[in-house]
Amino acid sequence: MIKVAIAGYGNIGRGVRGALERVTDMELVAVFTRRPEQVKKEIEDTPVFHSESYSLPGDTQIDVVILCGGSKEDIPVQGPAFARVFNTVDSFDTHADIPGYFQRMDSIAREYGHASIISAGWDPGIFSLERVLGDAFLPGSKGYTFWGRGVSQGHSDAARKVKGVVDARQYTIPIEGAIQQVRSGGTPDFSRKEMHKRLVYIVAEDGADREEITREIVEMPNYYAEYDTEVIFISREEMETEHVAFPHGGFVLTSGLTGTSSRQILEYKCQLDSNPEFTASILAACARAAFRLHGTGYRGAFTILDFPPGLLSPHSSDSLRSRFV
Amino acid sequence: MIKVAIAGYGNIGRGVRGALERVTDMELVAVFTRRPEQVKKEIEDTPVFHSESYSLPGDTQIDVVILCGGSKEDIPVQGPAFARVFNTVDSFDTHADIPGYFQRMDSIAREYGHASIISAGWDPGIFSLERVLGDAFLPGSKGYTFWGRGVSQGHSDAARKVKGVVDARQYTIPIEGAIQQVRSGGTPDFSRKEMHKRLVYIVAEDGADREEITREIVEMPNYYAEYDTEVIFISREEMETEHVAFPHGGFVLTSGLTGTSSRQILEYKCQLDSNPEFTASILAACARAAFRLHGTGYRGAFTILDFPPGLLSPHSSDSLRSRFV
Repeated sequence: MIKVAIAGYGNIGRGVRGALERVTDMELVAVFTRRPEQVKKEIEDTPVFHSESYSLPGDTQIDVVILCGGSKEDIPVQGPAFARVFNTVDSFDTHADIPGYFQRMDSIAREYGHASIISAGWDPGIFSLERVLGDAFLPGSKGYTFWGRGVSQGHSDAARKVKGVVDARQYTIPIEGAIQQVRSGGTPDFSRKEMHKRLVYIVAEDGADREEITREIVEMPNYYAEYDTEVIFISREEMETEHVAFPHGGFVLTSGLTGTSSRQILEYKCQLDSNPEFTASILAACARAAFRLHGTGYRGAFTILDFPPGLLSPHSSDSLRSRFV
Repeated sequence: MIKVAIAGYGNIGRGVRGALERVTDMELVAVFTRRPEQVKKEIEDTPVFHSESYSLPGDTQIDVVILCGGSKEDIPVQGPAFARVFNTVDSFDTHADIPGYFQRMDSIAREYGHASIISAGWDPGIFSLERVLGDAFLPGSKGYTFWGRGVSQGHSDAARKVKGVVDARQYTIPIEGAIQQVRSGGTPDFSRKEMHKRLVYIVAEDGADREEITREIVEMPNYYAEYDTEVIFISREEMETEHVAFPHGGFVLTSGLTGTSSRQILEYKCQLDSNPEFTASILAACARAAFRLHGTGYRGAFTILDFPPGLLSPHSSDSLRSRFV
């Protein structure tokens, strides 16, 4: 049994716990959190430690720690701290900072003798893999990534900060016509707004100026100004009943030519009822891979591009060859 | 430059030549064929050798040989023969025999100090990878593979052997309703005929008994009897103008649950104008991986599950992290 710990017990942490219950080769042995007293009430059968207590009771053996915090504040601190003591897996997803984060994690993991899989999830993660495979198999091809329909936490937070807004939920919506263009052999250069639109549900304060709220949101630079954005005002009750789930999904399309003019189109698509639970499932499979990498002598940081995919599977190589290849 | 040779100069061999022309880090340095005199007329700029001449002129350096023959008669013989002398890549696709073929290639490649990537292509190959990822990320999920619309050589050959048939072309067609059922969250157990149907275009001899030909085809065990099969008689001219290309494609769908009831659906799809050219493109990318595996000390046989996917890409790890992850 691979002994796994979770660091950070929010939606993803809970998802990892659920994912570990579905497999027979890994078990949850510890939870690290900033609020141990609260979490202890929720999970009674697993030891709960404070996030900063890296020295554990002598009988606590941990093979891999899965970091389930946010990419903005948690993982940049916890990744390097945990990688000194344990093998780690995380879903660090600030795309622009991935090269720097990789370098830091790689040098720490090498120095302290651990294996750290970073930026695992569906994007970055599976989508990264599909983009690389598309480019490798179809040199000179064009790649397209569409996200949604799904909730973007960052955009929801930005809308929530507008004066007069009580609550906000932003859905990123891929533009179906753009996807169809690629599927039917086109390779256009899309602007951002040609690929996605944004739909924002707002609960406003009583008597707030709705026109002003709408204007502030649709004109917000970096978040909304570059897109077609629709703002819809709803009641608090509707927000609490209709917008509690975290569905998401997306598409990676690669379109290229071989020979003189044969069009070859690859498409990877995921349709997720729960974004955090699927991310958690991927993190759990990566914990298995991190354990095996470490067990066969590998040290340092890895993305999903850097280790054999078979390591993610609970099945033996023989079984994979006879049942899946 | 990675020096690549092709063994077998049919549709796939020609496709590999085309694929190598699209990249800047590999070059074609030799072609092995059973009919060197003929092939020499087609390619003037590359040395052509007889398939069995493993002792080459002293200045011929070959890093990887891509085996482009058939899985029935060519690869089972050529794989072990070439793996004694070179690193190899092949698309051995007789699914039931892959475990045995792997073992043979693994022991030969280890003994002679080479790296051999076997069963590379889209199925087996990419589809194998997607099946394994789906199963690893969604434990307990159900996986579905659909093929088509595309030409099956084996089924075309079988129909061609029926008395009174001059030429035959069989298209495997996935049943759209079945795909839709999975996409919309269903996880049925399909029979074979519920997933695919078969469409056969026949050119018959003048005066042949068309009813008898149709009956013989649709009742043919192993090939047609288990499916709904439609037989359409066409003219020789129509066969030669409308059915010369080799389009193909397919779908790998994985549908599973996370948490208590979140449905997560993954879909990989390819839409190919040319099946042999796409297979060839994958083989070329695998030649790059075989060269790198060998260069970093790996010996033995590998499937696409057994090495880091980043090795398939012409880009450096740094560049992949900053541009694709």
